[in-house]
Amino acid sequence: MKKMSVTRHDGRKADELRPLKIKRKFTRPAPGSVLIQAGRTTVLCTASVDERVPPWLVGKGQGWVTAEYSMLPGSTSPRKSREREGKTDGRTTEIQRLIGRSLRAVIDLSALGERTIAIDCDVLEADGGTRTASITGAFIALCDAVRSVKLPDPKRHPLTDSVAAVSVGIVDGRPVLDLDYVEDVDAAVDMNVVMTGSGRYVEVQGTGEEATFSDDELAALLNLARGGIRQLVALQKESLGRQWPIG
Amino acid sequence: MKKMSVTRHDGRKADELRPLKIKRKFTRPAPGSVLIQAGRTTVLCTASVDERVPPWLVGKGQGWVTAEYSMLPGSTSPRKSREREGKTDGRTTEIQRLIGRSLRAVIDLSALGERTIAIDCDVLEADGGTRTASITGAFIALCDAVRSVKLPDPKRHPLTDSVAAVSVGIVDGRPVLDLDYVEDVDAAVDMNVVMTGSGRYVEVQGTGEEATFSDDELAALLNLARGGIRQLVALQKESLGRQWPIG
Amino acid sequence: MKKMSVTRHDGRKADELRPLKIKRKFTRPAPGSVLIQAGRTTVLCTASVDERVPPWLVGKGQGWVTAEYSMLPGSTSPRKSREREGKTDGRTTEIQRLIGRSLRAVIDLSALGERTIAIDCDVLEADGGTRTASITGAFIALCDAVRSVKLPDPKRHPLTDSVAAVSVGIVDGRPVLDLDYVEDVDAAVDMNVVMTGSGRYVEVQGTGEEATFSDDELAALLNLARGGIRQLVALQKESLGRQWPIG
Amino acid sequence: MKKMSVTRHDGRKADELRPLKIKRKFTRPAPGSVLIQAGRTTVLCTASVDERVPPWLVGKGQGWVTAEYSMLPGSTSPRKSREREGKTDGRTTEIQRLIGRSLRAVIDLSALGERTIAIDCDVLEADGGTRTASITGAFIALCDAVRSVKLPDPKRHPLTDSVAAVSVGIVDGRPVLDLDYVEDVDAAVDMNVVMTGSGRYVEVQGTGEEATFSDDELAALLNLARGGIRQLVALQKESLGRQWPIG
Amino acid sequence: MKKMSVTRHDGRKADELRPLKIKRKFTRPAPGSVLIQAGRTTVLCTASVDERVPPWLVGKGQGWVTAEYSMLPGSTSPRKSREREGKTDGRTTEIQRLIGRSLRAVIDLSALGERTIAIDCDVLEADGGTRTASITGAFIALCDAVRSVKLPDPKRHPLTDSVAAVSVGIVDGRPVLDLDYVEDVDAAVDMNVVMTGSGRYVEVQGTGEEATFSDDELAALLNLARGGIRQLVALQKESLGRQWPIG
Amino acid sequence: MKKMSVTRHDGRKADELRPLKIKRKFTRPAPGSVLIQAGRTTVLCTASVDERVPPWLVGKGQGWVTAEYSMLPGSTSPRKSREREGKTDGRTTEIQRLIGRSLRAVIDLSALGERTIAIDCDVLEADGGTRTASITGAFIALCDAVRSVKLPDPKRHPLTDSVAAVSVGIVDGRPVLDLDYVEDVDAAVDMNVVMTGSGRYVEVQGTGEEATFSDDELAALLNLARGGIRQLVALQKESLGRQWPIG
Repeated sequence: MKKMSVTRHDGRKADELRPLKIKRKFTRPAPGSVLIQAGRTTVLCTASVDERVPPWLVGKGQGWVTAEYSMLPGSTSPRKSREREGKTDGRTTEIQRLIGRSLRAVIDLSALGERTIAIDCDVLEADGGTRTASITGAFIALCDAVRSVKLPDPKRHPLTDSVAAVSVGIVDGRPVLDLDYVEDVDAAVDMNVVMTGSGRYVEVQGTGEEATFSDDELAALLNLARGGIRQLVALQKESLGRQWPIG
Repeated sequence: MKKMSVTRHDGRKADELRPLKIKRKFTRPAPGSVLIQAGRTTVLCTASVDERVPPWLVGKGQGWVTAEYSMLPGSTSPRKSREREGKTDGRTTEIQRLIGRSLRAVIDLSALGERTIAIDCDVLEADGGTRTASITGAFIALCDAVRSVKLPDPKRHPLTDSVAAVSVGIVDGRPVLDLDYVEDVDAAVDMNVVMTGSGRYVEVQGTGEEATFSDDELAALLNLARGGIRQLVALQKESLGRQWPIG
Repeated sequence: MKKMSVTRHDGRKADELRPLKIKRKFTRPAPGSVLIQAGRTTVLCTASVDERVPPWLVGKGQGWVTAEYSMLPGSTSPRKSREREGKTDGRTTEIQRLIGRSLRAVIDLSALGERTIAIDCDVLEADGGTRTASITGAFIALCDAVRSVKLPDPKRHPLTDSVAAVSVGIVDGRPVLDLDYVEDVDAAVDMNVVMTGSGRYVEVQGTGEEATFSDDELAALLNLARGGIRQLVALQKESLGRQWPIG
Repeated sequence: MKKMSVTRHDGRKADELRPLKIKRKFTRPAPGSVLIQAGRTTVLCTASVDERVPPWLVGKGQGWVTAEYSMLPGSTSPRKSREREGKTDGRTTEIQRLIGRSLRAVIDLSALGERTIAIDCDVLEADGGTRTASITGAFIALCDAVRSVKLPDPKRHPLTDSVAAVSVGIVDGRPVLDLDYVEDVDAAVDMNVVMTGSGRYVEVQGTGEEATFSDDELAALLNLARGGIRQLVALQKESLGRQWPIG
Repeated sequence: MKKMSVTRHDGRKADELRPLKIKRKFTRPAPGSVLIQAGRTTVLCTASVDERVPPWLVGKGQGWVTAEYSMLPGSTSPRKSREREGKTDGRTTEIQRLIGRSLRAVIDLSALGERTIAIDCDVLEADGGTRTASITGAFIALCDAVRSVKLPDPKRHPLTDSVAAVSVGIVDGRPVLDLDYVEDVDAAVDMNVVMTGSGRYVEVQGTGEEATFSDDELAALLNLARGGIRQLVALQKESLGRQWPIG
Repeated sequence: MKKMSVTRHDGRKADELRPLKIKRKFTRPAPGSVLIQAGRTTVLCTASVDERVPPWLVGKGQGWVTAEYSMLPGSTSPRKSREREGKTDGRTTEIQRLIGRSLRAVIDLSALGERTIAIDCDVLEADGGTRTASITGAFIALCDAVRSVKLPDPKRHPLTDSVAAVSVGIVDGRPVLDLDYVEDVDAAVDMNVVMTGSGRYVEVQGTGEEATFSDDELAALLNLARGGIRQLVALQKESLGRQWPIG
């Protein structure tokens, strides 16, 4: 594993995250509004509260968290066509289901009360890792939205853990952390890992498109991801300061 | 017209614009990318270049400018449902057609060369006047996009004039400039005026929903709009500095 | 303005309407059914009554007026594709919203009772000015539909004014009234004016596609429109005879 | 079969058609434009010519005839929702396929030349039998459209026969001809028969919704239909006069 | 009619059905599940029970039977595109309406109780006659589904008759029974006949695409169909054995 | 890990697959047609060949493999609504993308020649694990389809490895292999593993909906999956016999 010391196309080390910036309260209409930037990837994550629940939860005494994801047409070059004229494509659907599941893994829906928190992750600039940046940012927006509502039992906080996500992959034959677009295109294996602040997996999605990977490679990728998530959680915590909801 | 001295709910005078901020190069994928803020209304206007033209223009030796408009779900409270799941609503269609026509009124499409400039106006925060802010911001993004392409004849600049837009309306019985959301809801008459830097009309759209207006009121509204446009053009010019394309 | 005396391609003077024919009770299922012909432009305007209101008005003690607009495929040459196979296009949406707003400007919805009047404007033959003919004809259909229902208070008539519409534009450099298709294609500026019988504006929509217009030109256009509306109101009144609902 | 002498709810005899009116050249944009009225059922049938053929016929040296059918919202009471907002419903699809097949049965597509004739049957007022009136009227519009084009071989006329259609059904236990809406609702068996001027079947569609029928009943229905078609062909011939294309 | 003795391309006589196989309880989730094979045409017919009725039947004390039809993409060569990406095509709509009407003709919906039986006919392999095989198989699935529910009055069985269907057509100038795909493509006239076990017609749908047919030909076709249906009913009866619900 | 000896609700051991049946050539139109049954889960996998490639591959000298997945309405209880009436749902999109990627991981597309193999996985009966059964069955259908085409170079076989898939999960606190529906509903963690015959990962998708999992649990799940895949590959090999394409 000597190659680990070789720098990547942007000078990063194999286990180095891109610079991360988090701006809370970026817009005002939604109680949670976070602009998150991982390198050039920029996502606006808002968390809106609706004092109703979906039909299948009415009267069950619990809340719901849902998520949507979209890329603005100008977020890529060449421009990406707006989805509204047709149908939501498969990639978008997969991503928004992933974001929703990831957030629901760290929230006690019965402590939230009968309301829905709708997360919107709108990508303003895309340079790889938009889904993982969305999850990391959306968790902060979710914290701010939860703080804005009247909980059924103020002593029982709905957020049971924190959650963040990062991509790892095998590029030019070696595992690297937090791929940007150029690396993503070259990657033989691409994996997204969603993990809690306490170090447990929420999702592991590893894909070899036209490639496969061994048990050892899987272990190396998971190890890199774990290190990256630890740093991301620290940055989330710093951003929320005294509003950090977890223990 | 004594009432003109009375201040509005936010302290502005009848003929006073909201504070306007313009940030160029907000994102990088599109050659034109402008974040425009009029009070709390915030719109990201990008201008992307596609080196093709729509089918009906192929081989005609001229370019095209098209525009799309959308509000992010978190841009309003309560949250606005994403349009992609259904159909583009009527209001959206009207607005994006208006933006496209307004920009095409000040560009010589044959001097642009056979290419399309796609304008995207995505509203990050909505507090009234999103369509007029879109036009004012989109013009700047268009300037930056035009500067990024190789023109057929460098001595013949495609932009023949500048364009900006503002809303006026009759609120509590008197004409006011640049309505915010609270005023917009109260307005008996609502008018959007698109005008060139040289002071000629591009569009006049005056609507009395459940109300009507007289010739005198129309004249007062147009007068207010003209004054507002003059200030907006000055701010556009300042933002573009030496890149200001007009005479 | 000497040019005013020069005749147009069809022999009309600049301020002359096309011959207008109005046939009431053209079909029987809807209580209001008007075939209106302005020159060759032919629109069937029906007004149907539904004893329900849209969800947001239930229990509010007021009615609603809605409008739809469509062109039959055979109304143009070449044939126009039917919209049902795809989505309602932007132009259609703009027009039906305009028709609805125009009619609602002259009706007291609380005097109508909790019911909806649905206006349908189906263009049988299109030769320019279909949206303005639709408004002028729809007002008559609306009168007939209102007469067919049991009002909450018979002494309080819902219709507070009449409404008609006409197009004006700048063709070959001079303002003209009531453009047909040939003139519409040539027009540098195209304006639709909706006005009440009492002479107040409901809508002013002036557009310069690839052209702009001055204050003087705007004034001339509004003046022509005013004269045209006056004649249209007289014809509406004649058609309704003793059923004319306005004072 | 004594009951045959008993009159129907509108005074007609069992084997009597509703009064039929045919108005050619009702609108001008399409070369064929026929307003057909069978009692209160009123359909506008236009036939437009497109000098192209569908992709699968390109270069095959033959033409095509296609048909669409729609009911205007105001054609029924209560109002019928416009289909464009959703999908074409099953009934509409069945009808337009039937109209298309019926017309193609009497035209020699290779004699038509590589072009498409698009038939549009738009129902202005619906009182039963709209699909059969559409076929009877569309044939006349088709004749007028065929006359308007330059045929590959002027001596070889594309129309090889005429075609007309009528409904028959079992109402109150006895077979009747040309059902109106009231009878249609009551009918135990409903059958549409499309037949050529020379007396051959093109389509026989007999349906017993919640009912069945015997061989004898089928024979009686077909007999009634044959008599009705004979009269309809005579009226088509009269309407076209010297333009009648058949031998 | 000497030609009747000449064999067809697969060796069958003009009045001979393809070998028919019926397998009940092919899958378990739905109470009725029948795999029916007519020659190579293979259809899976399931009948599911939903203890609700469509909105227009709520509280009316009667049930409903509805049907859907679809061809699997791999059921034909070349592969048939899946419909879900677009709209249900016209042919599919016609067929599923036909199946639904045919089954409802032999069921007493008030004896069924307030529930819906949903029939699904999914074609696994298509070789002509898929709609008629669907009806014949669906009747058996319907019987099994009816047996699985608690009837309002056990002494009043909802099924009042049996129903089966077969195609007939004129191929190479002579009438034949139960066309396979090769014959269907060649047929000048194509007719589907739905008939009850007691020998009454439910549907007769005869179509001459680019051809017509005489009274004599119609009689010959109906006669062939009657013979085929008689055999199909015998096979249905054999398959259901003691569960045969009729008389 | 003592609990490993405790039997599951259907009597299986933790590391035991459900009985697997594979029937090749189930239908004839497609060159690959496999009915695969894992316990009660039944999927028909067809592989059709289209001698064209998608637009983006034209002229690139390589083929394509695409996949679609659908559940028949009668495959579940209660009945599942057919997707075609609306939009393809997110779950379906995820699954068909997974199947396509999995098969493309073991095929050398340039050795296939410029053609598309379209895989269709239609679920006839669903009892958990439909996506993994689809992959395991689709590989066999793909083998048969590849054998049916003329390869550019007969000595270079496109299939470079075999592929199979299985689900694992944590149910009642312990890891189990090949979950059926009842277990799937109860599972705290659900993971699908796609692996080649040579033992390399193609996809690892582990999800904790409202639950998380540790590194140890992940290791146990992967181990179970590896054992299951080994058995599945043996069964695939047995089914293909001498047609087994891999070394």
